[in-house]
Order: sequence, then C-alpha cells, then structure tokens
Amino acid sequence: MSEEHQHDLTGDSRPTVGIVGGAGYTGQELVGLLDAHGGVELAFATSRSLAGESLPGLGIGFVDPGDAPAGDVDFLFLCVPHGEAARWVARHAGGPRIIDLTDDHRPGSGRGADAVYGLAERYPVEIAGARLVANPGCYPTGVLLALLPLADAGLIDTGRLTVVNAASGVTGAGRTPKTYLLFAEVAEDYRAYGEGNRHRHLKEMRALLPGIKLLFQPHLLPVARGILETIVLPVADSADGAEVRRAWHEAYRNSRVIEVLDDGLPGLSRVVRTDRLVLGVTDVSDAGPRVVTVVVALDNLGKGAAGQAIQNMNLMCGWEADRGIRC
Amino acid sequence: MSEEHQHDLTGDSRPTVGIVGGAGYTGQELVGLLDAHGGVELAFATSRSLAGESLPGLGIGFVDPGDAPAGDVDFLFLCVPHGEAARWVARHAGGPRIIDLTDDHRPGSGRGADAVYGLAERYPVEIAGARLVANPGCYPTGVLLALLPLADAGLIDTGRLTVVNAASGVTGAGRTPKTYLLFAEVAEDYRAYGEGNRHRHLKEMRALLPGIKLLFQPHLLPVARGILETIVLPVADSADGAEVRRAWHEAYRNSRVIEVLDDGLPGLSRVVRTDRLVLGVTDVSDAGPRVVTVVVALDNLGKGAAGQAIQNMNLMCGWEADRGIRC
Amino acid sequence: MSEEHQHDLTGDSRPTVGIVGGAGYTGQELVGLLDAHGGVELAFATSRSLAGESLPGLGIGFVDPGDAPAGDVDFLFLCVPHGEAARWVARHAGGPRIIDLTDDHRPGSGRGADAVYGLAERYPVEIAGARLVANPGCYPTGVLLALLPLADAGLIDTGRLTVVNAASGVTGAGRTPKTYLLFAEVAEDYRAYGEGNRHRHLKEMRALLPGIKLLFQPHLLPVARGILETIVLPVADSADGAEVRRAWHEAYRNSRVIEVLDDGLPGLSRVVRTDRLVLGVTDVSDAGPRVVTVVVALDNLGKGAAGQAIQNMNLMCGWEADRGIRC
Amino acid sequence: MSEEHQHDLTGDSRPTVGIVGGAGYTGQELVGLLDAHGGVELAFATSRSLAGESLPGLGIGFVDPGDAPAGDVDFLFLCVPHGEAARWVARHAGGPRIIDLTDDHRPGSGRGADAVYGLAERYPVEIAGARLVANPGCYPTGVLLALLPLADAGLIDTGRLTVVNAASGVTGAGRTPKTYLLFAEVAEDYRAYGEGNRHRHLKEMRALLPGIKLLFQPHLLPVARGILETIVLPVADSADGAEVRRAWHEAYRNSRVIEVLDDGLPGLSRVVRTDRLVLGVTDVSDAGPRVVTVVVALDNLGKGAAGQAIQNMNLMCGWEADRGIRC
Repeated sequence: MSEEHQHDLTGDSRPTVGIVGGAGYTGQELVGLLDAHGGVELAFATSRSLAGESLPGLGIGFVDPGDAPAGDVDFLFLCVPHGEAARWVARHAGGPRIIDLTDDHRPGSGRGADAVYGLAERYPVEIAGARLVANPGCYPTGVLLALLPLADAGLIDTGRLTVVNAASGVTGAGRTPKTYLLFAEVAEDYRAYGEGNRHRHLKEMRALLPGIKLLFQPHLLPVARGILETIVLPVADSADGAEVRRAWHEAYRNSRVIEVLDDGLPGLSRVVRTDRLVLGVTDVSDAGPRVVTVVVALDNLGKGAAGQAIQNMNLMCGWEADRGIRC
Repeated sequence: MSEEHQHDLTGDSRPTVGIVGGAGYTGQELVGLLDAHGGVELAFATSRSLAGESLPGLGIGFVDPGDAPAGDVDFLFLCVPHGEAARWVARHAGGPRIIDLTDDHRPGSGRGADAVYGLAERYPVEIAGARLVANPGCYPTGVLLALLPLADAGLIDTGRLTVVNAASGVTGAGRTPKTYLLFAEVAEDYRAYGEGNRHRHLKEMRALLPGIKLLFQPHLLPVARGILETIVLPVADSADGAEVRRAWHEAYRNSRVIEVLDDGLPGLSRVVRTDRLVLGVTDVSDAGPRVVTVVVALDNLGKGAAGQAIQNMNLMCGWEADRGIRC
Repeated sequence: MSEEHQHDLTGDSRPTVGIVGGAGYTGQELVGLLDAHGGVELAFATSRSLAGESLPGLGIGFVDPGDAPAGDVDFLFLCVPHGEAARWVARHAGGPRIIDLTDDHRPGSGRGADAVYGLAERYPVEIAGARLVANPGCYPTGVLLALLPLADAGLIDTGRLTVVNAASGVTGAGRTPKTYLLFAEVAEDYRAYGEGNRHRHLKEMRALLPGIKLLFQPHLLPVARGILETIVLPVADSADGAEVRRAWHEAYRNSRVIEVLDDGLPGLSRVVRTDRLVLGVTDVSDAGPRVVTVVVALDNLGKGAAGQAIQNMNLMCGWEADRGIRC
Repeated sequence: MSEEHQHDLTGDSRPTVGIVGGAGYTGQELVGLLDAHGGVELAFATSRSLAGESLPGLGIGFVDPGDAPAGDVDFLFLCVPHGEAARWVARHAGGPRIIDLTDDHRPGSGRGADAVYGLAERYPVEIAGARLVANPGCYPTGVLLALLPLADAGLIDTGRLTVVNAASGVTGAGRTPKTYLLFAEVAEDYRAYGEGNRHRHLKEMRALLPGIKLLFQPHLLPVARGILETIVLPVADSADGAEVRRAWHEAYRNSRVIEVLDDGLPGLSRVVRTDRLVLGVTDVSDAGPRVVTVVVALDNLGKGAAGQAIQNMNLMCGWEADRGIRC
C-alpha cells in the first residue's frame, strides 16, 4: 500500500514518523518534540525494555523493535546504539526516508557517502532531497557551526592550533546504566575524557574542516544536559572578534536557531531545554600570538540531537527548518 | 610580653594562632584544619556578622574583629576581602607572623616585595624565615606547580601559546550572597568568565612564569569545591608526556601533597576535601604542532587556600610541611 | 481612555497585561508564559534593578516600577514582596483587574475578604467575575487540591492529625541573594524549616480546611524547582485509597491540569517545568489506626504560582482555564 | 596457625581485618575508615569486578572473594548483597569475629537470634562479647536512637500513630548501576518509595519498638549521602520537647557520636561525611492532639553503616567505641 493511499484511509494526511530507540534520552526528547510538532503523526516508538508501556502524557506506547511497522512510515528516526543504524538502513532501503542520529553514516565514518550530512544551516538543499540524512554529532554541531563560516571567510590561521575545550552534561553518554554515570559518582566531579585527541567525533569535525589543526578535549560536567565549547582560535592577519561576529551574522542572518551575541559569552543555562545554539566571541589583547576566544552553547539533546533531527525532517518535508522546535 | 613568656604562663607551649575572617568558606576551612592540627592553639576567629556565636563542634566562638587580640598571637591568618589585608599588616608590623590569604601581597600586586610567596613546594626555605607570607591564589597554585618544573627543565616552547582552560567550584567566589551564586542560578549552568585574559590571577602567574605566553580562561562549575585546569602545552623540541612526568617526579619526589599520575588524568573527585594536588599528562599525537595535555586537580579551599596556608605555617614553625593536612 | 478604545488604536484587540516584579523567579516564569500565551499582549514588566535591560528572547525590556503604565493595562500581575501588593491594589482601585501573587489578600491574611481566592479548579465562576484575585500560595495549592475534595466527601477523620511533610526547591524562597540560598550551602543539604507549625501558609490552608487538624512541616530541597507533599491522612470509617481516588476523579474529571494516578505516587520530575499538579494515593494496611498516604507533586513556579495566575487570567477573560499553559 | 602466632610472625600485634565487598559505597567507606584507624591492620578487601586493582591512596589492592584469606583474620566485615552474608557466616563458623552490614541477621530477619544487634550506644556489653554482630540498617539507626530512650521513659503515646518521613541520599541504594540511579534521573527529582509501610527496614524497627505504631515513609533525595528523618511523635500526657531532650541527654551523656541540640533542628550538611548522629526536637503548640516534631540527621554511610561498624569493632576489641571515627 502506498503511503499516500494509507493517508487517505486514515483521513490524516500528515506524514507518519517512527522512532527506533525511543526510550533513551535522545529518543525521549524526539518523542516529546514530535508529539508537540503538529505537522506529523507519530506512528510508533520502539523500546526493547519498555515494550507495552505507554509513554507518559502521550497517546501511544512503546512497541518492541521487531513489531514496529518500520517500513510503513514516511520518516524513520534511528536512535539506536552506534553501529546498529547501518543494518536498519540496509533493511529498509527504498522505504521510509531515514534520519540517522547515530554516527554510522557521518563524514569520516566510512559510510558518509551514502548519506547527506544533516547540518541544517549548511546543507538545506541537499537535506531537502535526501533519502538518508546523517544527523550530526552533538560536539561537531557546535564546533562546525562556529568555525565553518570563519573558515569560509579565511579568518582562521591554519598554521597554528585551534584548541577546543568542551564540556557536556551526562545525557550525552546515554541512558544505559553504568557506574561512572551514577548520581553519586557524577555529582561532585568534573573530568576530562577522550584525551589525546581520541574522541570519535574528531573524524567528523576534521572531515568538514580540512586543513584546520584541531585539538579537541571534552570533559564530563555534573549537569544533565548541555554543551559548552570554549575555542581558543588563532586568527589570520588582523582579524578580531568583530570580524568573527560579522561572519556569523552573515551566515545565520535568517536563522532563529542560531543566535549571535553582540556582547559577552553564552552560558549553558541560556540553551538548556531549547533547540537553539548561541555563539559569542571575545578579543584577547595580550596573549602574544593573535587569538580570539569563541564560546558555543547548545543543548546536546536539542540542537545537538533531537532538535536538529526535527529541522532535518522539516527540510525534507519542504517546511521551514525551525517548525515546531524550541527557539 | 614575649611570646615565649606567654606560653609559660598558660602552660601550653604550642604556638597560638588567630584567624581574621573566619566565617567565609576559606576561614571555615582554616578553622577546621587548625582545630584538627594538634600542634597549635586556635586563639580566636573573627566574624563581624557572627560575633558571639560559637563555632560548631569547636570550643571557641567568633569574636568581632575589633575585639580580637590580633597582636598577641604567634600567627595571624588573614582571610579578609582583597584590599583589606594590607591594612592589617601595617597595623601589626613587628607583631605576629602573618599568612595573608588575599592577593594583596602576591607577585604582581605591587606589594609583592614585602612578602615571601607561599608556594610551599618551591620556596620552603624562604617561607621558613618569613614574617609575612603571601598565600598563593587557587588558580595560580595549580598552574605554577604544573608548569614551573617544566619551565625549569626547558620543556615549554615559549614561542607558542600555552592555553589554560580552568574550571572552579563556586566557593572560589566567596560566601557573600550574590544573585549569580544562588543555587537556582548555578545548578544547571556552566559558564566562562574573566574572558579575554582579564582574570586578576594572571598577573600572579605571569610574575612567576616570565616568557611563557599564557591564555587563561576560567569557568564556573556547578559544584561547591574543586579546581580542574586543562592545559594545552606547546612542548619544546622532542619533549613528550614521559618527559613532563619525569620533571614532575623529580620536583615532587619528597612530597605527599603533590601526586603525579603515571597513567591517566585526575578528576575533581580525587581531590575534593583534601589538601592534595594531582598532576596528569597525556600525549597528543596528531594535533599538528607538538603539544601535550596537562591536567591539574586541586581543591580551591584545600591546596588552593587553607591547606597551603597550613603548609606555610608548618614551615614557619620548622615542622614538616604536610603536618596536619589531608594528604 | 477606555480599554476597548485603546485596543482599536493599536489595532491589537488582545487584552494588555503588565507585570510588577518581573525579575524574580515567579516574575520571569510569568513573562515566559505570557509571551508564549498568544491571547494577550505583554505591555510591560517592571524591575527596579534591571530597568532598561531587555528580556532575553522577548521584544520588550524591563521598566522601573515608577515608569510603568500600571493603570492602563487590562490585567496587572503583582509579583512583589509580601506586604507591597496591598499598596498597588489601593493605588489602582477601579483600574486594571489584578492578580496578586503575594499572600497579601489570601484567606487568613486579614484582607482576604477584598479578593476572590484564585484556586482555579474550585472557584472558576467567582474568579471569572473578580476584579482582584488572590493567587494561592504554592504549598496550599497542593494541600488544598488534594484535601478539599476529600473533606467534601467526608473521607477525612477530623479527630486525628493530618500530617503534611512537604519539600520544596529553592526558587520558592525567592531570588533575593541570601547566604542560606547559595549553591555551596544548598547543594548537599536538606533541612526542615518553619518547624512547630509556624509556616505562614498554614493560615491559608486552615481558612479553607476548617475542622481539619493540620501539622505542616516544610523542608528545603537541593533542587531549583518543584514541591512534593507527602500527606499521612487519617481516613474516616472504612475509606481507603480507592475511595480517595474516586473523589479526586470526580472533582477533576474535566481538568487537564490535575492528573490523578491510578497507580503509584508522583515524583518531582513528573511536574517540574510544567503547570500540572499530580495526585497519588496508597493504602497503608498495617499502621494501626487507618490512614492512607497521599502524595501531591507540582512545580512551585508553575501550578504553584505563574501557571495558576495564567489560569486565573484565562477565567477572567472567559477563556478555557488551561489556555496557554504547560499541561 | 593461631591468630596470636600469626601476629608474632609479622611483628604487628594489631588485630587483622578483612572486608568482603570492598568496592561498593559502604565497602569503600569502611576501607577509608579502617585505613585511618590506626588500631587494626587491613589485610584485604575483596571485589569481584576490581580484583587486581589497587585501592587509591592505600597500600593494598582488591582481591577476588575466592582468593581472600577470610578465615585467617581477626575481624571480617560483610558488605555483600542482602542474602549472601548468611552463607559467609556459615562458612566461617568459629573463625573470625564477624560484623555483618547486610540485613541477614538483624532483628525481624528470622536469623536475628544468631547475632547481637550492633546498635552501639544501646548494647555495648553484648557487642563486646559477640562473635557475630548484625550492624543496624541506616534508617533504623536514626529512628531507634531517637525513639528508644523516649519509649523507655514512657514519653510516647502508643495509642496514636508515629509518623516517620525519611529522606536518603542515593548511596543508600548501592553502587550497582541502575537506570533510576543515573545522574540525569536523580538530579532534579525527589520521590517517595517503599510506600504503604512496605520498606524492609520496618521489621527491624518494629522488633525493637514493640507497641509503637509506626508509619515509615522513605524518599530518595538528589544528594549522594545523608539521611534526615522527620518524626511527628505523639507524646504521652503532658510531655513536651524539653522532656524529650532531657531523655536524650540522659541516654547519650557520655557519647561523642550522638549530639543533642538544645535549640533548632539538624540539617543534612551537619552530618554528611561524619560518623555522628544529631537529634533535635521542637514543640508544636497548635496541632490539636499533642505532638512534638523530632528530626534525626546522620550519614547513611557513616553512623548508618561503616561508622557504626567501626564502633562495633572497637567495642569487640575492648576499646573506646568512638576510636578512629569522625565525630
């Protein structure tokens, strides 16, 4: 039965969507956004552990992945563990249009060529026509939206190191119970991880920022959500904060999702539980070699995952990218 | 009356100590450490707001600063607002030996020449003989104990930028009530401050690390205590993490306060509520220009303030530096 | 100028609203809800300290209370310190309809007769016609919505004590900086306050629950928002949890704001950042004298303050009570 | 080889101790206390998952339970899951004296007769001579030390309900990773559990407080450690807070572990990371039937587990009960 036919039968002409992996933090966020969206019909959300249980406040319940009519929806969101998405894509080739929130099809993954990279502000046209979208990683979303316009404008000194110190809330590590994610372990702690440029998101950033020398050092914050990336950026020639800000304003002048501060740097609380991303920059007069400090704030579950996935779906439907998101 | 005579009269030959500003976070920490120390007698702790109230669990109570016999003790700890310590020092010239926990007499302050800088592991001999010790700032303590041995060994490339990304718990900002320190403001937030190399601790670091190009970017963490400093360090020639570690081991081989990790990087929980400082380093193979990542962890109220003040007092008494501290 | 005329001139026929005290936690919450509401136009929000600054994400800025056109709006929300609302009401008699979020005009205040008590689910008709509404306190909102239907149904044993153990997040204590509200004081603490039945909200509860013997013991939780009230309720005759649940279902069958759980007890996270209130009850088989345990969860800034204020405004406009709130 | 002989050989005449289950929160706390104790030698601590890893800051490492010389030590602490302790006791009958921190041998367990109940302030003589001590549960420790002296003095009205509202930090639920203990689940939540008098600690309390009608309602707090129990206590005849306080002072006049407040109620922060227990009481003048409000504060890992276990070991060695604990 064709999708169109199906819609006629139900009398609901809205596109149908399904979520594979609805019980994790990203999946739950997506369920909430889709439920509030208005333009689509949430057909199912899967959860192996919670199958049969209803979703709080929503009309539907979780189904087992094996029972989900994944081939019958218009859009399929994949919130599965990294590595499992490729199999779902293979199984449903030619079926629903897929938004993959894992890193299976991202640039640098080896399967990036199969998919359009879903950085909504950069590739709206490609995303609109895509059958398979690789939703960007949370950290790369911040780094790339901050640096791509600056690289385009030639403002980055590619001979020197760009130092990204990032910090993320614990939902970035997922909802599978592990000792190091327990409240009593996290509550008074703060620590670096993925040290020595070993975080798996580096490949994704580098694929989009060839020629930029990146040092990416993430940390785990004692908060549930949110990412703050503090970038010490070597600028070319006589570039300064004002020029950086100008390049951002130019790139994002039509966006309600990206906010560029004219003064000061964004803190985490400004973006938590939203789908926005906020950019700030400050001059550094006396560091010696010329640098500026850039700070990017976003919610790892919002613009860093579910919010951007909704943007991608909107673009694929021919709607405004920011329809139904929190900005 | 001479100090010695005074001791004979009381029958307690232990040195007497007084704390000016005992109700702030640093003051309270100092009261606790001195009470548990065993080697000294806590004669008084002042508090303008809590005068007359007793100290929980201790035998003494707070007195008004005006009523404190500040000239009669052997050691005076100044935990007053920055700027007020200089007046206390002037008033009690020739009296008690003073450990000033403000930045009034630190290097770069303009009054640094009057005092010995109390970085206990670096200047034990000078501290032992001092009448006035300037207790180091919390952030400089971490940066200096990490970098001084490396600078001495010529391991730092002084032509490139040393990037220090620091994060501190809120007790570092003191106990005077301000809106931005309220629980509901801090709990889900994380933000940069002192951006653009404008933190007042920079002068102190630079005075001790001449020739090193520093970018120091602090952040406010949603925890009560603890400092983590993540340093992206440009290394000279063929230096690597192993060499860095070797320089630290050499410098701190007799210290129970400084711990050098042979593997991995320290997190905050390892040092919170202790007077220790932990150092770790990791190689970064693919950043382009050669760097290592150094992480320093300490408690801003421990080694970053009260713990180091006790070390200084111990040295001034001719005792082991680590007597009565938590290491 | 009449209100109707004014609307004609601006071409915007929506009622206008003003907020006195827009920078506190309740005021900010109200600003956010009114901005998203759609049915009204936010004319101004006052703040003595932030006058001249713009509201993040909104089109307007704070004005000084002295400069606010408080007499010209259709609705005035008072989020001022307790005691100041009465003066605003006196000054604007016959002007805008007022929703007072302080306890100045609540039952038991001595000025309760001047106002309609804005417990939206209980007094919708009276609220609809009111010129002055006393918005209920956060704790009373929970206790009253839980107990009033049970008192009506004769399910409470008035000869025995009803024990209310309540816990609230710190925003309930306001945004004025005080030492005991600092992050470092609250983060690892939990404490009782207002002990011995001395909380000022008791008068309000008792005025509505005459004959019920109440012991109300609040506690301060290390969270920003939310109230959980655990009520050990002596039930009359053979009443049990099922009967309690039935009385609630009956009372709130048309409400989207009040949720009655058929199983289990609500936790705080279920209501935080919503305007809902959730009720649960459990039987206690072996306590001796017959009791049930009732748990009520609400957000002190939502249903406990700003959300309920919006419900009241909606009723005063002849709209659905739950228009524009988060339920 | 006899224990005495063994000591001669090593030249260390201190009693040896072993911990079964050293990697959980209670086990870690015990390791720390025993390491600092001075009077005993920590021979081993077991951990199935961490076998082979060393204990941070200590001279020994974890061993697999199968490799631990459990029969050769003087004292064996059992920090295993509930249900496993009985097997360890059976296996080592006649060997080391055992302090069981599970509820396997507590009053009401069905095996209580085999052991002495290790409520150190109540049964010091029995504990001193015991081969097997059942270390009390964390919640019962607070309730019993508050109520036993009052029951003895006839101050409790046994005809009415004693309502215990308790709240505990998450370490009380152990260190095995579970979704509901993750930071992102706990951080903004607060919830009741074990509702309807179904917590397993009730049997233990009732066995010691026969005739008292108890309602025990625990809650989970967003903190790592600490227990606060708020007890609404029906008092007999004309008893009041002063009389309650008198009974406590009488019972605990020689204790440095139990603190009785002459004014106010204790908060959690007063006891966290200590082995103390603090008692406060307040009169309630207008509740109707005569009650007082009692608040007990203790650290669930301190006096509620490891601290009390050390007290028991001290008593079994003929030492002061409070040797080597944090009071």
